[in-house]
Amino acid sequence: MASNNFQPKPEHKFTFGLWTVGNRGRDPFGDATRATISPTRIVQRLSELGAYGVNLHDNDLIPIDASASERDRIVSEFKKALDDSGMKVPMATTNLFYDAVFKDGAFTSNDARVRLYALQKTMRSMDLGAELGAKIYVFWGGREGAEVDAAKDAREALKWNREALDFLCEYSIDQGYGYKFALEAKPNEPRGDIYLPTTGAMLGFIATLDHPDMVGVNPEVGHEQMSGLNFYHAVAQALEAGKLFHIDLNDQKGPRFDQDLRFGSESIKNLFFLVKLLEESGYEGPRHFDAHSYRSENEDGVWVFAAGCMRNYLIFKEKARQFNEDAEIQALLKEIHAAAPEDSELLGRYSRAKAEKIKTLQLDRTHLAAKPLPYERLDQLTIDLLLGVR
Amino acid sequence: MASNNFQPKPEHKFTFGLWTVGNRGRDPFGDATRATISPTRIVQRLSELGAYGVNLHDNDLIPIDASASERDRIVSEFKKALDDSGMKVPMATTNLFYDAVFKDGAFTSNDARVRLYALQKTMRSMDLGAELGAKIYVFWGGREGAEVDAAKDAREALKWNREALDFLCEYSIDQGYGYKFALEAKPNEPRGDIYLPTTGAMLGFIATLDHPDMVGVNPEVGHEQMSGLNFYHAVAQALEAGKLFHIDLNDQKGPRFDQDLRFGSESIKNLFFLVKLLEESGYEGPRHFDAHSYRSENEDGVWVFAAGCMRNYLIFKEKARQFNEDAEIQALLKEIHAAAPEDSELLGRYSRAKAEKIKTLQLDRTHLAAKPLPYERLDQLTIDLLLGVR
Amino acid sequence: MASNNFQPKPEHKFTFGLWTVGNRGRDPFGDATRATISPTRIVQRLSELGAYGVNLHDNDLIPIDASASERDRIVSEFKKALDDSGMKVPMATTNLFYDAVFKDGAFTSNDARVRLYALQKTMRSMDLGAELGAKIYVFWGGREGAEVDAAKDAREALKWNREALDFLCEYSIDQGYGYKFALEAKPNEPRGDIYLPTTGAMLGFIATLDHPDMVGVNPEVGHEQMSGLNFYHAVAQALEAGKLFHIDLNDQKGPRFDQDLRFGSESIKNLFFLVKLLEESGYEGPRHFDAHSYRSENEDGVWVFAAGCMRNYLIFKEKARQFNEDAEIQALLKEIHAAAPEDSELLGRYSRAKAEKIKTLQLDRTHLAAKPLPYERLDQLTIDLLLGVR
Amino acid sequence: MASNNFQPKPEHKFTFGLWTVGNRGRDPFGDATRATISPTRIVQRLSELGAYGVNLHDNDLIPIDASASERDRIVSEFKKALDDSGMKVPMATTNLFYDAVFKDGAFTSNDARVRLYALQKTMRSMDLGAELGAKIYVFWGGREGAEVDAAKDAREALKWNREALDFLCEYSIDQGYGYKFALEAKPNEPRGDIYLPTTGAMLGFIATLDHPDMVGVNPEVGHEQMSGLNFYHAVAQALEAGKLFHIDLNDQKGPRFDQDLRFGSESIKNLFFLVKLLEESGYEGPRHFDAHSYRSENEDGVWVFAAGCMRNYLIFKEKARQFNEDAEIQALLKEIHAAAPEDSELLGRYSRAKAEKIKTLQLDRTHLAAKPLPYERLDQLTIDLLLGVR
Repeated sequence: MASNNFQPKPEHKFTFGLWTVGNRGRDPFGDATRATISPTRIVQRLSELGAYGVNLHDNDLIPIDASASERDRIVSEFKKALDDSGMKVPMATTNLFYDAVFKDGAFTSNDARVRLYALQKTMRSMDLGAELGAKIYVFWGGREGAEVDAAKDAREALKWNREALDFLCEYSIDQGYGYKFALEAKPNEPRGDIYLPTTGAMLGFIATLDHPDMVGVNPEVGHEQMSGLNFYHAVAQALEAGKLFHIDLNDQKGPRFDQDLRFGSESIKNLFFLVKLLEESGYEGPRHFDAHSYRSENEDGVWVFAAGCMRNYLIFKEKARQFNEDAEIQALLKEIHAAAPEDSELLGRYSRAKAEKIKTLQLDRTHLAAKPLPYERLDQLTIDLLLGVR
Repeated sequence: MASNNFQPKPEHKFTFGLWTVGNRGRDPFGDATRATISPTRIVQRLSELGAYGVNLHDNDLIPIDASASERDRIVSEFKKALDDSGMKVPMATTNLFYDAVFKDGAFTSNDARVRLYALQKTMRSMDLGAELGAKIYVFWGGREGAEVDAAKDAREALKWNREALDFLCEYSIDQGYGYKFALEAKPNEPRGDIYLPTTGAMLGFIATLDHPDMVGVNPEVGHEQMSGLNFYHAVAQALEAGKLFHIDLNDQKGPRFDQDLRFGSESIKNLFFLVKLLEESGYEGPRHFDAHSYRSENEDGVWVFAAGCMRNYLIFKEKARQFNEDAEIQALLKEIHAAAPEDSELLGRYSRAKAEKIKTLQLDRTHLAAKPLPYERLDQLTIDLLLGVR
Repeated sequence: MASNNFQPKPEHKFTFGLWTVGNRGRDPFGDATRATISPTRIVQRLSELGAYGVNLHDNDLIPIDASASERDRIVSEFKKALDDSGMKVPMATTNLFYDAVFKDGAFTSNDARVRLYALQKTMRSMDLGAELGAKIYVFWGGREGAEVDAAKDAREALKWNREALDFLCEYSIDQGYGYKFALEAKPNEPRGDIYLPTTGAMLGFIATLDHPDMVGVNPEVGHEQMSGLNFYHAVAQALEAGKLFHIDLNDQKGPRFDQDLRFGSESIKNLFFLVKLLEESGYEGPRHFDAHSYRSENEDGVWVFAAGCMRNYLIFKEKARQFNEDAEIQALLKEIHAAAPEDSELLGRYSRAKAEKIKTLQLDRTHLAAKPLPYERLDQLTIDLLLGVR
Repeated sequence: MASNNFQPKPEHKFTFGLWTVGNRGRDPFGDATRATISPTRIVQRLSELGAYGVNLHDNDLIPIDASASERDRIVSEFKKALDDSGMKVPMATTNLFYDAVFKDGAFTSNDARVRLYALQKTMRSMDLGAELGAKIYVFWGGREGAEVDAAKDAREALKWNREALDFLCEYSIDQGYGYKFALEAKPNEPRGDIYLPTTGAMLGFIATLDHPDMVGVNPEVGHEQMSGLNFYHAVAQALEAGKLFHIDLNDQKGPRFDQDLRFGSESIKNLFFLVKLLEESGYEGPRHFDAHSYRSENEDGVWVFAAGCMRNYLIFKEKARQFNEDAEIQALLKEIHAAAPEDSELLGRYSRAKAEKIKTLQLDRTHLAAKPLPYERLDQLTIDLLLGVR
């Protein structure tokens, strides 16, 4: 497994947010440590590194107080940079969290006028995304939460949130934008608690929308890990339900503040299973890195970081291939999953006859419990493979 | 607020699992500290304390290896105890976790024969529940998880889980049992990770079943708190989706092992909002305590514990009433939620005209951001009320 | 327990950091929401609310790039505000985290020149603190940590940290400042991991310093709770070791990002035991609130927040008094702690005779295990007391 | 890096607790899944696998109610097995948690008679350990904690704990056993909270004992991770203070119930730094695995598990060697740690002259902040090395 085989190419569909490589290192206890990198430079440098495209919030590109002509000039320059490099903008989203107006939420603000402003800002941002060719529209409701549950009925907040999404689905249809919406969950930060805190909660919520087919999820590694959840499991649920519309790849040192670390730098085993799942599932969407370099890096370090995200994905992808070709691993899996045809037949769709047959089967639970389950061996083989000692 | 006004009565619909007051204090590092309390004694004592009913796993009542005649004798004695006391069995469930046969799951075991055994055991347990009058059937898949993700495709596990639930829905319909199914999530313990780890994930899963209307959730306080989630928010989502079919009340000292503490003994503010929500939502199901007394208690302590669970619920209920009648609190809420009629009208269902109007509204975000949000005051009034100093 | 009995007075020794009520609401995902409040105004307003004093980082008062004359002018105005109001500055500290120079640590920076700069900045800040009358000097090493353990040997970081503290102890002695140093732990944020992450780790570290008697701890509620630890236990350890030199009071919704919520707004039971402990232990230092109001508040809300912190402390103090006077509670405690004099005598200092006697004592463990431990009852009485229903 | 180079040998000093490979798979929701393996068989099989020795609680070997003659017979057989295999017992400890008598603690029980019993049991167990040649005596106070802080003053609990340890230090001295005591922290489980919850807290506590030199720590991977702490940092603090007397190696999926997973199966990067630290620090004590195989394994799986623990340690050890010989990594580290001699000289021990010189140094913080810190590159090289792609 030579170290130079992991060269990213556009066909891998790696994307970065403008806000990720553009992150300036500002945090709650410290100021920016890096200069701004212009969107056009980001496009150019990522293209050189082998990325497929970039994604953006409206205000990553266009200042919140830009005039119409400034907007048009910026968009025009940005489109030129995209054209020059062949880079795409597969996804767009709205910044509904930075400005003080959203301090108590956007779609779930207690103030109806703020909710209107959030709709306005999102429609305009959808227009921008469509203009740039985006077909996925992400909703991360960073401020849609509460510290004080006395102030807002959580059911009301859900209704407002649904109202906004139903409205915006219609807007997309009406404009012919062809967007798929991808909802991104996070449990807390910046709000004390955020509504719909997990990918699972988003899946439950989607089932209650007017256009559930248009709406899926955008799971983010670190956001599920902030709740201590198994990210591979969360993505498997989304995929199995046909709802993985986008994905945010990064890493995290367990439940704590949101870290957005370089993909693959911490959760080695779990992210290996994630990449294996994505590659085997037929998922064809972007592999988007919603991460940023350590605050201590300068711009050079930012590009090292970006290259590392893609490299680690490709290493895991190669290891997934090895896993599938490893004779010992595959023999173990075959043993583990062996089933008698008559047992498999009895399972599946209900019939009264089956139910009666199952109810009266002679099943010796002690005997069943005695079947060996060589999971230590299988897991150790996986570790050997991950560590490159097989 | 006199201390003796919180007398539980059957109309409050308080229930306990046989396994809760019957818990013997066994834990991973220690043996049982209390003797077994017979189901009939549990029924009698809980009835005296003012409870409405008891719930059970099949093996809480009937040993896993009981003969048919033993089973019938036990059921008969138990029904007599119920009749004598007027106690109900509103909910039943299956023990699919204690026996070694389920060491790698029940509905999601890699062994098809174990999956058949789990179906068999569940159908028989549903028969028992129906015989006892239960109309809610809970599924807690304590072993439906993994430590070794190499051994089981998480998507496959979901398919098997769905297959079992679809089958059992049909069984209930076919038998005319009239059950509502309530799915209970837990993130981990006893498995390294459990599939469908949150109430939200269960809601997402339900949308993919054959009979989604028959299936709702059974959120448990501590299980959501093990993931650091806001329980009031989780229940609000379930209620708002019409999916709160049952609830497991207890308490927990934050994300750690499953503690099942006396309801209201730790998370005072969050559980106040929970009780307020339940009481105001029209939820008419049981208030079930899935908790147990400290391992250091003897049987006397068990009944003190049980009484405390109910008492704390009633204290919060009374405080919810006070909250709603508190003039200062209500005035603040009115101020917070004030909205101009023309703004409210613009929100809601999409129309092209509305979208155009909203997109061109003159909205001054600085002005909007300046609206006072007196949440510190509101929260402090809530704290005053909870601490009994208003 | 009338609601208006909780009026803070200077004798309660309530203090606030300039940075706490001065917090402008900036967070990782959003900009400031409140205007700057000048230090002199903070002093005046807190004095009116009944506080005892304020604490500060050097740069809370004096901009990092202020000239010597600016510094002197600012200090002079600030001292006048203190004199006018009678407010004290019992504690001072250094901002070693905000500026980009500290992006990889201050005392533990890999760059020796940054370590020198950190010493310089701290000595100057100690001079300022001494000029303002501070006798407690706090060290919070917010940047003394790592994301990349490859880059720094954690043992080396501890040596550098010790070197700095030993140096600064000598500086304080040499200058005759009479400072007590109070070390404040935090597990992470803003760094991926921070060295010496808990109050316990700080106590262990202090034992290795040249002047351990000069150095104690400054535990912060939320910082221990970020690791899921029992704050009352942490403070008890510090107090019992004679090492509680200062305390940072706030609140937190469990392990997640650092929230600095209003004291008493979340962890009601644990903070009740904390206040009880502080009041009964003879602790005479400041009760310092290192918290800030919700980002959604305006300046009015900041003062409501500050008043609420003090009010909740006083409510808990009053409840601690009630706890100690409650006959039923005290009878239970007496029962729980009853001991035969001959047993108590056998315990304590070692002697060979005692050891032999204890080794051969006839002790029936089944009998011992049978002693009732009515902790459910005791805890419920505590809950009743906290909820104001006793 | 061939896969067969990782053969454990006694010189590696790998040890296992009898209770670890002897774990029967019992958990809070399920019964045992494996038969008992006799201590003599454990000794024999571990010896064949290349281990150095075994460790034990008194009751791992001798039932709590064994007669004196049974005890002697068991010890004699066990010593023969040790002799036959050349295996050692470097560490012994006391089971002060399983029996109901310890339900409210052992050394910190509210019942003085239980405290006496705990002393008695520990002295007898120390006798046993000495007879088996152990020189390290571990104290894990699994029940030394609380759910109900009203019932026990946490300061009192610390005093009782200290009293017991001071007593037992004297006992060891008096008997000439030559023990080093190693204190093992855990934050919770089985108690709601355990006193002295972290390795750091133990280090702080040790400083308050009568014989601090006899007492160090026994950090356990999973126990620190249950609090979300960086285990490598915790061990570094212990080592740097000369207090690492023993170590418990296992693994854990983050903050949740205690999992005791196969060493190296989850926290790959952190445990690599741990092994590197242990190997470079001169630590000569046992590498003890306090882990157990998945509950789903049979006895074959137990030995696969044991072999995997040792193998992963040796893989990390080999990778640590590679790290130290990797020219690119070492060049980066040299760059990162470069320091001008005059700067290094100014640091270190205090003198008034130095202080004055440092206070007046011309230091340009913007210039200092601009120094590149190529940590992304360094960390990615580490990841490449761990994944075997360098």
